[in-house]
Amino acid sequence: MEAKVIWHEGLRFVGYPHSGHAVLMDGSREAGGEDSAPRPTELLLLALGGCTGMDVVSILQKMRTPPRRFWIEISAERNEQHPKAVKRVHLTYVAEGVPEENLRRAAELSQERYCSVAHSLAAEISFSVRALP
Amino acid sequence: MEAKVIWHEGLRFVGYPHSGHAVLMDGSREAGGEDSAPRPTELLLLALGGCTGMDVVSILQKMRTPPRRFWIEISAERNEQHPKAVKRVHLTYVAEGVPEENLRRAAELSQERYCSVAHSLAAEISFSVRALP
Repeated sequence: MEAKVIWHEGLRFVGYPHSGHAVLMDGSREAGGEDSAPRPTELLLLALGGCTGMDVVSILQKMRTPPRRFWIEISAERNEQHPKAVKRVHLTYVAEGVPEENLRRAAELSQERYCSVAHSLAAEISFSVRALP
Repeated sequence: MEAKVIWHEGLRFVGYPHSGHAVLMDGSREAGGEDSAPRPTELLLLALGGCTGMDVVSILQKMRTPPRRFWIEISAERNEQHPKAVKRVHLTYVAEGVPEENLRRAAELSQERYCSVAHSLAAEISFSVRALP
């Protein structure tokens, strides 16, 4: 995989991934940026959620129990000192119209076998599920 | 840090980070998506580049040798089997108008001490620098 990240101005960068869909990043005002786009560490958490989310939706469809609605709540703890690495992440998978057992099994399969982003991280990842009617 | 990733349709997700700057993600057509937005694993690499890029620009400014132009080329190797984790990443820092020694020192400081995304990854990270006139 190849990608390029080009500095624009201030702390603003434009990322060009292989797919061609460019992504802006910027620092917070406290860090000297202009808060015009997400922080890199935020993208890291979104990447984790998107990765395992795509797995779970695909698996639930194969189980013939596609969700009506589905989202993932992400909560992360970072080091307080530099480097402020993400140390622990908890994911809550929430789905409407899916048997809880299927949702749990899909989340397990993603975390144990499929999610490339989860397996690229050094952080400890835990999860829970919430099946809504 | 809190974030939320909401399924939209197909494999398309919208990520809502703490800063409020929403980010779209989508799967490739081969994976059943519509390729309307970057892949999660792409975001992971861009996050790494943006994180260390912001460090390097800040450090070069403190050294009073800000770059005229600056970018990072990213090359990553993934597992071929599931989970297709990122195993190795090589970053090439390219700057115009910066002494090579300063660029190398800034990249080292980012990788060793500051870059929160680099220290959140399990992958082996290497780097090189290219100082252009």
